[in-house]
Amino acid sequence: MTMRYGQRHELEVEAARRVERHYGVAAHRVVDIDLRAFGGSALTSDVPVPKDRPLTDMAGEIPVTYVPARNTIFLSFALAWAEVLGVGDIFIGVTAVDYSGYPDCRPEYIGAYERMANLATKAAVEGRQRVRIHTPLIRMTKAEIIRRGLELGVDYTMTLTCYDPAPDGLACGRCDACLLRRRGFAENGVPDPTRYRTI
Amino acid sequence: MTMRYGQRHELEVEAARRVERHYGVAAHRVVDIDLRAFGGSALTSDVPVPKDRPLTDMAGEIPVTYVPARNTIFLSFALAWAEVLGVGDIFIGVTAVDYSGYPDCRPEYIGAYERMANLATKAAVEGRQRVRIHTPLIRMTKAEIIRRGLELGVDYTMTLTCYDPAPDGLACGRCDACLLRRRGFAENGVPDPTRYRTI
Repeated sequence: MTMRYGQRHELEVEAARRVERHYGVAAHRVVDIDLRAFGGSALTSDVPVPKDRPLTDMAGEIPVTYVPARNTIFLSFALAWAEVLGVGDIFIGVTAVDYSGYPDCRPEYIGAYERMANLATKAAVEGRQRVRIHTPLIRMTKAEIIRRGLELGVDYTMTLTCYDPAPDGLACGRCDACLLRRRGFAENGVPDPTRYRTI
Repeated sequence: MTMRYGQRHELEVEAARRVERHYGVAAHRVVDIDLRAFGGSALTSDVPVPKDRPLTDMAGEIPVTYVPARNTIFLSFALAWAEVLGVGDIFIGVTAVDYSGYPDCRPEYIGAYERMANLATKAAVEGRQRVRIHTPLIRMTKAEIIRRGLELGVDYTMTLTCYDPAPDGLACGRCDACLLRRRGFAENGVPDPTRYRTI
């Protein structure tokens, strides 16, 4: 499931479609969610995306790229679709290491979401389908995530990380997301195939 | 906040706008959420809405009018807007008495949602704004809710209850929601101003 939530660019939806085609995903829904109606984030408004923040600062204040209740909304749509499909396993790629300090990426949040979900749905309450929120990346550094992907044969040219790419797809190279990705590749001693605007 | 979520009719959005105008609501957002994309409910698909169910049956099986994860999605949008507005008080009119047994109307679900919400948002985690989910009607019977509304001067002609109204606004009079409303008025010995298709 991919969310078109009013983010600054459609490029991550295109990246999700590349992944879908490459792996022959059985079902892929692109859900429209208008978070621009609320604003409150650099990712869904005209507030500039911060650039060149020292990586050491990212453990501090939660930055303006935080989107209010974003993962809660995403997981809630996934919960609805999972129940309709008759499945209980939901996967989300949040990480609480090498990240920007977003509260809705932390294990304690995910645990609380899972407890709530098991009281929310008919399938769970009737005992037919327990909900599990899987977060395989949550305790991995970016370097570890990239290494695991390389082991699994991930083609990283299909992926997109930048918060603020140019319309032609070039990554900015300077937002938190780019800086963390670049460091992750560097720590593995592997070239990052991303095309960056700046070096 | 009103949700246009793919329900069978737009009449409840119109009813919300009447309430907005009448009380001069400071801000009212109508959010589009396409739950029809998932289906799984008589309220968001072509599955017929059950009619003439005995009121005593409603404590039993959860009926097909259940919409997967609906209140979880609704509350998550409210959580986002509340955080942008800088407020922590969210009100939802669920009731767990005289109801259709929906899991996401029960106090234990609401409590779990509130705990999750306080781990989800930047405002809560930074200690600036605790989230409270208020459910003033949750332990009241329909008769009690109607009585309280009459005391407060609610004009019940502005409200809509039916799951399956005709396009001209006439209520069916036979779905769970109509049956519970009608009994609530009857128990108060007060005429229900709703215009019903059937008597």
